[in-house]
Amino acid sequence: MGRIVMKFGGTSMAGTERIRRVARIVARQQAAGHEVAVVVSAMAGETDRLVNFCREANPLYDPAEYDVVVASGEQVTSGLLALTLQALGCKARSWLGWQLPIHTDDAYAKARIGEIETDAIAASMAAGEIAVIPGFQGVSDAGRVTTLGRGGSDTSAVAVAAALKADRCDIYTDVDGVYTTDPRIVAKAKKLKHVTYEEMLELASVGSKVLQTRSVSLAMKEGVRVQVLSSFIDDDATPADEIPGTMIVSDEELEGLDMEAQLITGIAADKNEAKVILTRVPDKPGTVAAIFSPLAGANINVDMIIQNVGRDKGETDVTFTVPAADLLRAQTLLEAQRDVIGFNRIITDAKVAKISVVGVGMRSHAGVASTMFKALADRGINIQAISTSEIKVSVLIDEDETELAVRVLHTAYGLDGE
Amino acid sequence: MGRIVMKFGGTSMAGTERIRRVARIVARQQAAGHEVAVVVSAMAGETDRLVNFCREANPLYDPAEYDVVVASGEQVTSGLLALTLQALGCKARSWLGWQLPIHTDDAYAKARIGEIETDAIAASMAAGEIAVIPGFQGVSDAGRVTTLGRGGSDTSAVAVAAALKADRCDIYTDVDGVYTTDPRIVAKAKKLKHVTYEEMLELASVGSKVLQTRSVSLAMKEGVRVQVLSSFIDDDATPADEIPGTMIVSDEELEGLDMEAQLITGIAADKNEAKVILTRVPDKPGTVAAIFSPLAGANINVDMIIQNVGRDKGETDVTFTVPAADLLRAQTLLEAQRDVIGFNRIITDAKVAKISVVGVGMRSHAGVASTMFKALADRGINIQAISTSEIKVSVLIDEDETELAVRVLHTAYGLDGE
Repeated sequence: MGRIVMKFGGTSMAGTERIRRVARIVARQQAAGHEVAVVVSAMAGETDRLVNFCREANPLYDPAEYDVVVASGEQVTSGLLALTLQALGCKARSWLGWQLPIHTDDAYAKARIGEIETDAIAASMAAGEIAVIPGFQGVSDAGRVTTLGRGGSDTSAVAVAAALKADRCDIYTDVDGVYTTDPRIVAKAKKLKHVTYEEMLELASVGSKVLQTRSVSLAMKEGVRVQVLSSFIDDDATPADEIPGTMIVSDEELEGLDMEAQLITGIAADKNEAKVILTRVPDKPGTVAAIFSPLAGANINVDMIIQNVGRDKGETDVTFTVPAADLLRAQTLLEAQRDVIGFNRIITDAKVAKISVVGVGMRSHAGVASTMFKALADRGINIQAISTSEIKVSVLIDEDETELAVRVLHTAYGLDGE
Repeated sequence: MGRIVMKFGGTSMAGTERIRRVARIVARQQAAGHEVAVVVSAMAGETDRLVNFCREANPLYDPAEYDVVVASGEQVTSGLLALTLQALGCKARSWLGWQLPIHTDDAYAKARIGEIETDAIAASMAAGEIAVIPGFQGVSDAGRVTTLGRGGSDTSAVAVAAALKADRCDIYTDVDGVYTTDPRIVAKAKKLKHVTYEEMLELASVGSKVLQTRSVSLAMKEGVRVQVLSSFIDDDATPADEIPGTMIVSDEELEGLDMEAQLITGIAADKNEAKVILTRVPDKPGTVAAIFSPLAGANINVDMIIQNVGRDKGETDVTFTVPAADLLRAQTLLEAQRDVIGFNRIITDAKVAKISVVGVGMRSHAGVASTMFKALADRGINIQAISTSEIKVSVLIDEDETELAVRVLHTAYGLDGE
């Protein structure tokens, strides 16, 4: 018997038939004796529809009014889930962002959650009522509707779980857990029983879009136990708490599980990066700052950086990656700085992919990177750039070789299942 | 220079292109120097879509959660109109029902408006900001979303106009005013420049669906000057305040206008009534109460009542009308009372129409009813029942003769225009 926060994404909430399935899953957790709060996304496609309305109304939209419009999608699904739970005989009610309230700052359209008041909702849950909370939304100190940015419902769920001191935050998605890699690429990918917060963060940031990065950071900070599982398993034979998913845990908890240390947890691919090469940059102090300061000022995330010695003395080529969506902006900013930086040409390439191997085990093992380089070289895959963190090695390759590289590495690190 | 509340219905708000037209009309009023608040409906079709979701989720829906779902339609259009006004260079912001707040009782799905707090919105309007208010919604004392029932946005607009002590409440619809009768039936119908609250009430209740009856009652009670006009006139050549519509005024104001007293203001037809005849009812005290008490208890509105002396001594036939939508329920209730009432047969007929002539002028003129009866008789139209009020005479006829009767009466009372 505990207190559980459950979260369902847009695919799970798309239409009244699917909401009925969600309601059955929720009701089963309550029947198992838990106090239950549910955080819901808008129906799949609805937020896009609302965002398009805003763009049509005003391309330079006021984020405060944008939030009034787009927050309505989750309002609808929260009311509908409460109604559906009532139809199953459960007590249930919706709690909108301003009703709890979920306080946020006033950065409309990308607000950050502050305090969540839980007295009323905790009393309601203790009285056997299921609390249904629209994700993605909150209220500013000025009493206006705020939203957390796209994908914010995962963050809402983790924040509510932290505020309610919930025993677990179950994130139901259209996949049934976190895999060693994308099962659409590698049929032999295995579902992970456990993954640490840090691994999840690295996997999320390099394209394994199971959870929003921000929600994982928050869970790590607040110590919320997060489980990823599928809302498309609706098997009455499976007892509550035994639906298999992936549990996201701390390093300490993982060690306590006394498991065979896994060197590599997963392999992720990200095709949303683009490569920029500035040729014949003067090799003198201050040049690198002149390149990257304007990009940082424009909030463009630079990832991998390599400096090659050029053919001519006193000059180098500088290579780096930016999100593909920011490539044009980055190019414009750099052209404007041409005289200050003093480069010769800008060469760009959006047809690249970043392949990453991730695992807390690599902290204590040498040779992880060299295994990667050798496996790729053996298949003739050219590495264009490299970056590393404590628990991740990433390489940039030609986009066309993405799937091949993932398969090769999945085998090289011994991750292939049956 | 005054303070104006403008209201736009679902057809006017259906899509961003139409919202742009609405924004231009609103901006023009502000440019003319007025302080402006706008009350908006949901996009045409949206409330039906949301109501259907609720029905699918739970046929016996909890009205409090139903309100959470259906109130979202107006939330969306209020945000979109604010954004569109901003795109035209106006200052504008939305004020949701809970933000003003618009206090209502807790009769969810059919709430009644209580106090509306106007300090914040009046300050905002005085500072040149256009206030955009979603119609149809409010907030209960428990802090939950309420809605006013279908068509409630007219009532929201009148209530906001009363609270803001506005000089005028302009209701923009898809017709350009109130006509002497439905122009689709009589091509020579004339638009009325003025109509009194009471005439409007009678016209609204007998099928001229320009304004919601409840909003007219509220306007009469609060002395709000209401104007009906079309949102599909978007002629920049027409100065603000000169768009021709129909002004709804008090009897006193109408007299002050020094107009030629009009005997009859308009002719309305209503096909939503059904006729019930109970035959051979014992002609003794208490019988009539036995018939109508159960109907009143079930909230079924009985309109015309006639008692015919039957062929046999001590027995009469009782004829009356109920809304066609309530006919089956009424029949069931009466059958259950058969022994108490003691009737012989129930005969029902939904193929009837109620034709009404309305006008404050008939108060001081005799002969209005006899003109009606003679005109209908001359064309062989049979009258099945009659009811009258101080400013209205209604007759029940065969539904097939509706259009003929309206045309005949429109001519008989000299209402035909060019």
